[in-house]
Amino acid sequence: MRRFEWDRVLISVALTLILSSYTFSQEPEKIIRSVFDEALTDRTAYFQLEYLCKNTKGRIPGSPAAAEAVEYTRQALIKAGADSVWLQKVPVPHWERGKELCRIHSLLLGYEDLNISALGLSVGTSVEGIIAKVVEVQDFDELKQLGKKNIEGKIVFFNRPFDNKLINTFSGYSGAVNQRTQGAAEAAKYGAIAVIVRSATGSLDNFPHTGVCRYDQNGQKIPAVAVSTIGAELLSQWLKSDPDLTTHLVSTCKNYPDTWSYNVIGEIEGSQKPNEIISAGAHIDAWDIAEGAHDDAGGCVQAVEMIRIFKKLGIKPKRTIRAVMFMNEEMSGTGGRTYAEEAKKKGELHYAALEADRGVMSPRGFGFDADGTRLEKLLNIASYFKPYNIRDFDKGGGGSDISPLKAQGTLLIGTMPESQRYFYYHHSANDTFEQVNERELQMGSAATASLIYLIDLLDL
Amino acid sequence: MRRFEWDRVLISVALTLILSSYTFSQEPEKIIRSVFDEALTDRTAYFQLEYLCKNTKGRIPGSPAAAEAVEYTRQALIKAGADSVWLQKVPVPHWERGKELCRIHSLLLGYEDLNISALGLSVGTSVEGIIAKVVEVQDFDELKQLGKKNIEGKIVFFNRPFDNKLINTFSGYSGAVNQRTQGAAEAAKYGAIAVIVRSATGSLDNFPHTGVCRYDQNGQKIPAVAVSTIGAELLSQWLKSDPDLTTHLVSTCKNYPDTWSYNVIGEIEGSQKPNEIISAGAHIDAWDIAEGAHDDAGGCVQAVEMIRIFKKLGIKPKRTIRAVMFMNEEMSGTGGRTYAEEAKKKGELHYAALEADRGVMSPRGFGFDADGTRLEKLLNIASYFKPYNIRDFDKGGGGSDISPLKAQGTLLIGTMPESQRYFYYHHSANDTFEQVNERELQMGSAATASLIYLIDLLDL
Repeated sequence: MRRFEWDRVLISVALTLILSSYTFSQEPEKIIRSVFDEALTDRTAYFQLEYLCKNTKGRIPGSPAAAEAVEYTRQALIKAGADSVWLQKVPVPHWERGKELCRIHSLLLGYEDLNISALGLSVGTSVEGIIAKVVEVQDFDELKQLGKKNIEGKIVFFNRPFDNKLINTFSGYSGAVNQRTQGAAEAAKYGAIAVIVRSATGSLDNFPHTGVCRYDQNGQKIPAVAVSTIGAELLSQWLKSDPDLTTHLVSTCKNYPDTWSYNVIGEIEGSQKPNEIISAGAHIDAWDIAEGAHDDAGGCVQAVEMIRIFKKLGIKPKRTIRAVMFMNEEMSGTGGRTYAEEAKKKGELHYAALEADRGVMSPRGFGFDADGTRLEKLLNIASYFKPYNIRDFDKGGGGSDISPLKAQGTLLIGTMPESQRYFYYHHSANDTFEQVNERELQMGSAATASLIYLIDLLDL
Repeated sequence: MRRFEWDRVLISVALTLILSSYTFSQEPEKIIRSVFDEALTDRTAYFQLEYLCKNTKGRIPGSPAAAEAVEYTRQALIKAGADSVWLQKVPVPHWERGKELCRIHSLLLGYEDLNISALGLSVGTSVEGIIAKVVEVQDFDELKQLGKKNIEGKIVFFNRPFDNKLINTFSGYSGAVNQRTQGAAEAAKYGAIAVIVRSATGSLDNFPHTGVCRYDQNGQKIPAVAVSTIGAELLSQWLKSDPDLTTHLVSTCKNYPDTWSYNVIGEIEGSQKPNEIISAGAHIDAWDIAEGAHDDAGGCVQAVEMIRIFKKLGIKPKRTIRAVMFMNEEMSGTGGRTYAEEAKKKGELHYAALEADRGVMSPRGFGFDADGTRLEKLLNIASYFKPYNIRDFDKGGGGSDISPLKAQGTLLIGTMPESQRYFYYHHSANDTFEQVNERELQMGSAATASLIYLIDLLDL
């Protein structure tokens, strides 16, 4: 055989070996199978979820419940076998809900109390509250058209519904949520004295769904509350019969000086590239009216579970694998920003970061904020998940707590669970432990652990 | 141009037209979009489900609740706009639950009452019940090994758990359910005087999950009950500590002479091939301890909803489209058999039949009991459902109520909803209206209506 041919043979052998290690090796399939077996037959994560929901309910940043959740997840990471566990100090706002009343009075129709919930970070009314007429609008354009002469001194009622025709419920949410986040700031420009916002949910129910509201730095800050969708429908009907009805609105919530809380971090040190980090995270804070089961204690226990499963099965990752419980996703995202800033300061390289903040219904896939060859490689590993009926590997993903890592070129990944029922729970008292199915939760834990394992193994 | 070439051009044009009508026409996509729009913005089906769950709870064949459910769905089909609606007489068993007690007594451990539920069609004990020792087994092989000398005069406790490692929960169920269906018949062969069967669920909960049990025609009929999985775990633990513990079992259920009930049928007459029928069905009966929301009032209201949507949108099918509510799926399947027999008698050609009996969680796809070209064509229409994230079109499917139609060559189809949480509800008091999400239910209604529309339109 000529030298030239030997070269070709060697190249061919090398290529075959490389390809087979990616495509034909049985090892990853077996490991993934054992990850699912472990997740589906162990109840640790489910009991952790129960604890967080029932014992640290309403763990809004800066609250005693949030401190308890921080300590509980810290201990959970230690029990899971993490090589090291630590807290990362995070500045957080301190806001407290007060008394709440929304009583609509009509000389024609009588009166009715609507279920409301102050929006996070909103200013309050006096204890006596305010009594004013209500003007209903669908969006900011309508606000502009009505102008100061129709709005000044009134309460603006934002009533644009969630579009249930959109199959992806996160699109429905996106189309409705600016009323909540910016409604108060916009209405204040025209002299409104408060806003009542239809809850950002496609469900017709009597739960107010809260969430953060943001004021313009130099604008007037006016009280803002969410009303349940049933309440919104009623108010809208009454306004059609009696546009002169008045509303007595009380919301004695209050902002206090900023305080401190913590991100909770646990890791398994990488055996070959300890300075490269792959993280899976979720946020440990929750709205004060919620157990925060789907949003987002479920995501947190899945991240802890990833550590537990790696340790239990003796998986030794090449890179450092981290579980990160971010504080204060809901109000101002300081947990995510602090994490990225400290990573930069310490020169930590984040190879990939996953966020689970879309509920813990059955996993259907992952979204990857990537392009080109890297995206292609990531989409190809969907085949490993087909036996688990997890088929939707798409471009997209990310999440608000990991987005500050994008600046360092980190691959961002978002979990994509079945989405149809998420907004029935989101930011409301309906987001309870009972709404989580143990098996769906654990299918998600296994999917996340398997994905992180593959990204590390195959250098994706 | 030569004659020869003209032929080729004509063939090419004809092929293009045929292909384009299948592949490129925008019409089906638009119709399907409007089907989903209608389903996701109308609440009729959800309110019907609430009525069936709350007002006809426990609608076991032959019961007054079953009669009410028959009449309610008959009226629902009329309101939905069906061209004709009728009842089809079905012979059904008449079985009634009695008093139930399962008290385990141990001289070492004290006593405990376990949550049980008599199995459907099982014989009862006397009012005083029976008191006997318990022998725990995993399967029929173990029963055989133990033999008459260890079993005679005792209660056999079948405690083989549902395998939670199986991703498809229906496989987990299949692996456990023969203890329930045949356990009494098998144990009786060795002189057992009753059986207690671990509930066929992967959930560790305190709901007994009932279901039918079948005796050998010439064998001894002994009482049979399901025990909750928590009860089963407790009993098993106690038996390890005290194999001599006794159980006081009372189950005064009783079989009465057969009676009559009805299948409920509504149809839209076909505009071109009225003698060819495409049906979508589910079963209207439910276990006496359940609201039967997922199993299977949800499937029924989806079938009614298909009729309502076709009428509302003015879809005029070529073939006759039927919604069929089968009676007595749970106990002896006489509804499905009667339906197929009458179809044969009348010379009705069933082109395709769909059954929805796997819960009404989010639809993930359909299973088709087909082969070759027909299967290939059916799998190809998955592309129409991709915008709705319904991607799993596979060989498989069917269902027990439509299986008697197979003899006439009917294409059998089964709905394949998200399966992870189904057996948390199945055959238990946990199968309630509250466990159904409105949007998931209606995604399923739209998927079924769209599939039936396409099968008719494209002659699949």
